Amino acid sequence: MVLPQFYVDDVIRTALKEDINYLDTTTDLMIPEEARTTARFMAKAEGVVCGLEIALRVFTLLDNTFSARVLVKDGDTVRPGELLAELEGRTRFLLKGERTALNLLQHLSGVATATRRAVDIVKGTDASIADTRKTLPGLRAMQKYAVTVGGGRNHRFNLSDGAMLKDNHIDAAGGIPAAVSMIREKLGHMVKLEVETRNLEEVEQALKAGADVIMLDNMDCPAMKQAAELCRAAGRANGGHRPLLEASGGITDETLRAVAETGVDIISIGALTHSVKALDISMKIAK
Amino acid sequence: MVLPQFYVDDVIRTALKEDINYLDTTTDLMIPEEARTTARFMAKAEGVVCGLEIALRVFTLLDNTFSARVLVKDGDTVRPGELLAELEGRTRFLLKGERTALNLLQHLSGVATATRRAVDIVKGTDASIADTRKTLPGLRAMQKYAVTVGGGRNHRFNLSDGAMLKDNHIDAAGGIPAAVSMIREKLGHMVKLEVETRNLEEVEQALKAGADVIMLDNMDCPAMKQAAELCRAAGRANGGHRPLLEASGGITDETLRAVAETGVDIISIGALTHSVKALDISMKIAK
Amino acid sequence: MVLPQFYVDDVIRTALKEDINYLDTTTDLMIPEEARTTARFMAKAEGVVCGLEIALRVFTLLDNTFSARVLVKDGDTVRPGELLAELEGRTRFLLKGERTALNLLQHLSGVATATRRAVDIVKGTDASIADTRKTLPGLRAMQKYAVTVGGGRNHRFNLSDGAMLKDNHIDAAGGIPAAVSMIREKLGHMVKLEVETRNLEEVEQALKAGADVIMLDNMDCPAMKQAAELCRAAGRANGGHRPLLEASGGITDETLRAVAETGVDIISIGALTHSVKALDISMKIAK
Amino acid sequence: MVLPQFYVDDVIRTALKEDINYLDTTTDLMIPEEARTTARFMAKAEGVVCGLEIALRVFTLLDNTFSARVLVKDGDTVRPGELLAELEGRTRFLLKGERTALNLLQHLSGVATATRRAVDIVKGTDASIADTRKTLPGLRAMQKYAVTVGGGRNHRFNLSDGAMLKDNHIDAAGGIPAAVSMIREKLGHMVKLEVETRNLEEVEQALKAGADVIMLDNMDCPAMKQAAELCRAAGRANGGHRPLLEASGGITDETLRAVAETGVDIISIGALTHSVKALDISMKIAK
Amino acid sequence: MVLPQFYVDDVIRTALKEDINYLDTTTDLMIPEEARTTARFMAKAEGVVCGLEIALRVFTLLDNTFSARVLVKDGDTVRPGELLAELEGRTRFLLKGERTALNLLQHLSGVATATRRAVDIVKGTDASIADTRKTLPGLRAMQKYAVTVGGGRNHRFNLSDGAMLKDNHIDAAGGIPAAVSMIREKLGHMVKLEVETRNLEEVEQALKAGADVIMLDNMDCPAMKQAAELCRAAGRANGGHRPLLEASGGITDETLRAVAETGVDIISIGALTHSVKALDISMKIAK
Amino acid sequence: MVLPQFYVDDVIRTALKEDINYLDTTTDLMIPEEARTTARFMAKAEGVVCGLEIALRVFTLLDNTFSARVLVKDGDTVRPGELLAELEGRTRFLLKGERTALNLLQHLSGVATATRRAVDIVKGTDASIADTRKTLPGLRAMQKYAVTVGGGRNHRFNLSDGAMLKDNHIDAAGGIPAAVSMIREKLGHMVKLEVETRNLEEVEQALKAGADVIMLDNMDCPAMKQAAELCRAAGRANGGHRPLLEASGGITDETLRAVAETGVDIISIGALTHSVKALDISMKIAK
Repeated sequence: MVLPQFYVDDVIRTALKEDINYLDTTTDLMIPEEARTTARFMAKAEGVVCGLEIALRVFTLLDNTFSARVLVKDGDTVRPGELLAELEGRTRFLLKGERTALNLLQHLSGVATATRRAVDIVKGTDASIADTRKTLPGLRAMQKYAVTVGGGRNHRFNLSDGAMLKDNHIDAAGGIPAAVSMIREKLGHMVKLEVETRNLEEVEQALKAGADVIMLDNMDCPAMKQAAELCRAAGRANGGHRPLLEASGGITDETLRAVAETGVDIISIGALTHSVKALDISMKIAK
Repeated sequence: MVLPQFYVDDVIRTALKEDINYLDTTTDLMIPEEARTTARFMAKAEGVVCGLEIALRVFTLLDNTFSARVLVKDGDTVRPGELLAELEGRTRFLLKGERTALNLLQHLSGVATATRRAVDIVKGTDASIADTRKTLPGLRAMQKYAVTVGGGRNHRFNLSDGAMLKDNHIDAAGGIPAAVSMIREKLGHMVKLEVETRNLEEVEQALKAGADVIMLDNMDCPAMKQAAELCRAAGRANGGHRPLLEASGGITDETLRAVAETGVDIISIGALTHSVKALDISMKIAK
Repeated sequence: MVLPQFYVDDVIRTALKEDINYLDTTTDLMIPEEARTTARFMAKAEGVVCGLEIALRVFTLLDNTFSARVLVKDGDTVRPGELLAELEGRTRFLLKGERTALNLLQHLSGVATATRRAVDIVKGTDASIADTRKTLPGLRAMQKYAVTVGGGRNHRFNLSDGAMLKDNHIDAAGGIPAAVSMIREKLGHMVKLEVETRNLEEVEQALKAGADVIMLDNMDCPAMKQAAELCRAAGRANGGHRPLLEASGGITDETLRAVAETGVDIISIGALTHSVKALDISMKIAK
Repeated sequence: MVLPQFYVDDVIRTALKEDINYLDTTTDLMIPEEARTTARFMAKAEGVVCGLEIALRVFTLLDNTFSARVLVKDGDTVRPGELLAELEGRTRFLLKGERTALNLLQHLSGVATATRRAVDIVKGTDASIADTRKTLPGLRAMQKYAVTVGGGRNHRFNLSDGAMLKDNHIDAAGGIPAAVSMIREKLGHMVKLEVETRNLEEVEQALKAGADVIMLDNMDCPAMKQAAELCRAAGRANGGHRPLLEASGGITDETLRAVAETGVDIISIGALTHSVKALDISMKIAK
Repeated sequence: MVLPQFYVDDVIRTALKEDINYLDTTTDLMIPEEARTTARFMAKAEGVVCGLEIALRVFTLLDNTFSARVLVKDGDTVRPGELLAELEGRTRFLLKGERTALNLLQHLSGVATATRRAVDIVKGTDASIADTRKTLPGLRAMQKYAVTVGGGRNHRFNLSDGAMLKDNHIDAAGGIPAAVSMIREKLGHMVKLEVETRNLEEVEQALKAGADVIMLDNMDCPAMKQAAELCRAAGRANGGHRPLLEASGGITDETLRAVAETGVDIISIGALTHSVKALDISMKIAK
Repeated sequence: MVLPQFYVDDVIRTALKEDINYLDTTTDLMIPEEARTTARFMAKAEGVVCGLEIALRVFTLLDNTFSARVLVKDGDTVRPGELLAELEGRTRFLLKGERTALNLLQHLSGVATATRRAVDIVKGTDASIADTRKTLPGLRAMQKYAVTVGGGRNHRFNLSDGAMLKDNHIDAAGGIPAAVSMIREKLGHMVKLEVETRNLEEVEQALKAGADVIMLDNMDCPAMKQAAELCRAAGRANGGHRPLLEASGGITDETLRAVAETGVDIISIGALTHSVKALDISMKIAK
């Protein structure tokens, strides 16, 4: 698990508090304290597994006698009926952790599955798939982890770790050239600068101004293709150095291939994290 | 807003910390501290608005000079192009809060919209639409609020505020009658008891045992119809008193009407909260 | 221990921070780091033990070499001089945890002892003893756990997990019938509804309106007896289905038996948690 | 209010979260958002008021339109039927805050009332009443504040802000003289040192060793009287400088006067905070 | 103030809790609640002011009647005796906040003063001064803010918002070229890549591999000069595109100018934040 | 380690979150999960080690397979090149924890080193070295621990655990005698009282009033000498009982010896904690 354990545990604890609150009325009254059993995570739909270690961590935090045999790992594609892991522990805690573990596992697998689908669609082009800041409160780092598990790349995590000039910033400075030179002077030397553009004229300004990344905001494919040609021409004139081009705005599975073929480098898709379809995974507890 | 302000503010603060981190590199360097402007929330798709006060609260927490003119309220249906609210405040904070506000507003409106669709499908039957515990970590109460805004009812919030006997509990006690009588003895007198059943025999046992709610887990429509008849017959024999019947398990928009027409009282749908399609709403900041 | 470990540990941590602050000036300067010793929890008064695992957890959180031999369990009655547990660990941490462990153990045993006394008083009647929301900030779940250890039942834990119509709610709706029908329409299907009544007329209204529980607020015994008869009559007319009756308001050990004999189902007593006499238990550290 | 606002607000927030959880099912569904009303705090028993500002703060944190007219202040004695404060605000929040406000007000007034009773009993002697560390988790500073409101003095708040040599510490050092000189060498110069003694021999040792305070642990009155004489004799020999004497251990209202008359300076009573009888105060909400 | 208010307030609250704990024994007993007075922040040494708004925020959080007249702003140079601000508020809170406000103001002004000194030393060269991750726990963002106030630039804030290949990373991949190509493949497209080098051979490898920034770790000035020449030559061959050069490692005020004159772009100095000399500023409270 | 583990872990966690944030971009992508290695802490300057267990705890919290061989202990003096500890663990976590561990170790060793220097300067006199409340937010207890490791004593930790009458308090009461008698009446019997004085007249007043400690604020050496004589004379007249004298205000290494020779008991030095020069210690990770 690459996510910091502190963060993962904080999310799990929040979820468990939300789900258990003060006691599990049914389980605490019905299941003997010492009872143990086994359980299985099984895929009920095809997709990319993500969050398996996180889901198992739920039970470890509840029950220090818990153990699991893991059969797949994050990033693996599973088919309906495929076994993901076998769990063994105290029955009470398997029942108490079930919902929290599944909620996390299904959601993150949903993100990874959608990302993988997008990655597959652009295969063979030069484009990468990236996420956005359109994430769910408290879950951003988990969702961005799931995007990488699905084969995507991460856009900036927050407003601190990357600069992006949008129209309000550009207008405040009086145009792209002025805005870029104004921000470059103060920006930390480890921070990349992206400039949002809406037409080819702005793309050219951003190219000249020396943006690290140029966002093509809601442009149509012909315009993006021209932008890509402009940008590559600039690269050839500069020993290969050129900004990356990022296509953004309402791109769906249907339009994705065409966008990728325009020659852009990055395609960022908000729906990967803001409109997630959970991957159907069940947890069966043995009787 | 019925949700406790402490909870709403905690969620917003978590989201803002995630999104801003230590500074907004671009805005802090480009936008003068004293600059003010206006902005507008506008629907870009048809759906049910939810979370508008929450979204506006984001800006109030950032900027105590912020104000807004609200044009619709949670629960209203909006069409593409319809204005939701006009915002006025310091430009820096409109830019810093934009993403957090939209992430919340679009997600909650997505939940309310899906709920409303389900409610409309069952209109004219006796069935209500309910949510489940298949929610996103940290967002359960917000999502459940959105379900009520869409016209649905809330299932239990957590494992404390309702008892549900599942197969593991029932097996541990040696059958439904034993399980119900065992838990009733200790259960708080304000807690309702639901029993999960998978066939008509179990429904009959649960009826006799005196469950408050009987869940029909993944039954087909004919079975549910028979269950409903059994249950209503029991009601007639008891001065009208009978348990509620809840249909559950993989019900989609396509199958929903048929389920509702079987005569069940409650149809609970996990997808309302675990597979949310964000409602497209934009925030345009005036230049 | 049925209380979630996270909650128990949070309470203990709060208590330890309060009691130790930055260092234990005396112990840290006087007791060698490696010194080990034993200690004993001993009852100095007769009562019901509660919180023994919680008290031992204090030392486990301070000292991962700590161990204990437990001689009684929560719910057992102890007599003066009876040994509860033998502890072994590093002397420093036995001294640092002593006050926090005893504060919790004595308080919770006090709650359980008072509850057991009330339960014993009503023995042989149909009445159960229940707690209220008159608890101490931060300790509600622990206190309610202690009530169950003493043989009582829990009333609702909070304003979310049970609905209770009080006079202000009833007046706002224009009477009990209107209030009940208004709230039923929106209330989650897993939430029970209690109606507060002050006279027999209101009891009859609540009966007709279909309350799940009817609170008899500060009624005298003859009135409660009549209410119980009304309610049982209604039950006989409805195949046995009838609401529970809850007596509430200033009931003391002296008046308790008489109240129980009126035929009410539940007697809720705020003093169980708001006016707790600690049970005298000592911790002797061997020299 | 002398307690830090941060601490008071933290306790209130914890209590409100515990009591409201995600929503107030009854009030949110029944009381219109804009409804306003008045309410009154009224004493139903005689005692010393404490925590009135804290109780009112509960409503301020919930409702920024809340106001109150305060008729008594912390430390005032009230009689049954006496009005403490008149409240005005949104009905919803008066109902939601009621239980939390009363739980705090009744508990703290209970502490202050018991303290005042003890202070009155020792009136005319040289003895002061003091609290102990036998407090309820999370509430120590509030309880200690209530002790001062009742006329008592505070013993140390925690293990950091005062040193107390108990038998384990003394044994580790090889006797009182060795223990005192060992700890004095390292102790911060602003920290007072108390020595626990069980007989007159130990009192003499502590006197010679130069303790700031000498605790007489569970001694009988004649022994305490002799200790007081020894101590005063030492004072006369040293220009008036002498340690304070603190009586401790199982002192009740019945034995208190006799203890005070032995000439001790401080009588510390754990029951002031570990066995609190809530003062009966009601909140009536106008219809 | 560009730092997020949430962060600033969290730091202040932590500091106030540490400094006040449960009560200000002296002030609460001696100063009447309603007393008001004025106070002044005055420089007692020459330096750059930083943290003035933060220091004033301390009092605002304690006392909502507090106001201040601000005479200088963050980044201004002050001389001994120069007035920074005039404060007016309740005497109790001026006394309670004094230490916390000064601790923050003096520390941050110390950071800004040291940074300004370094910036002045390199004036006229192409070098900028930057900070490092050698900061004090919990204060990183404040310290980095102070570096910008002093005229410096920020290096990466944390391990997430910039990639730096150190010798362990490079060895794991089998050399600089392999390491750079391996990390580029997965790195988010908004993240810059710095490569640590210890000699000219490694600088050449990093140049070829296409690092965004090359760190010259503990090189002597002649080597840094050669590195700068290599890098500029590469720039001329690539249409001006070249990595930035960062000098790092044990650079003091004495050696700083010589380093700057080698032609490096960035000089990062850990001592700016790890060895801070507080700027002497007093707060005088009027009698 | 005498500091409470909870506090130490909280500081470490804050530091790790600040330094790692959501992922360690470089290490997570470059270092295989299972790779292990060794590392060494080595002194690069002469000084007093402090915080070694804290620094090692950083790695334990990240990696439960981490172990270390410790060669020196807090309080030991080390020379350049001296080995402090050898570490063994997973390479990823040695790299991730390195900066946090060193930031803590170098800072606390810096505090201890400066304290030891001051203690050495006053050796042979009766004076002790003490710290002040001029500490860094969130680090007070750690810094005060480091002062004791260096051989100093702690002044009060916060405004609760010691009373100090400053000029504002004294003026409010109408002079030192009135102020002392006013505060004594209410002060807890375990709290010491210090009185701030600026001249010999005030010293005499404080002596007569019975202060426990008298602070000589910014007095010159001859005045302090006279104060010491006055105080000792008073002691001889009272069987040896006299207040402690504390010199305070702008005392540097240069003036320290002369101050100590005046006969004061305590010399408090803010610079020990507000102007800390980190001790240079390196961590070398084996390849």
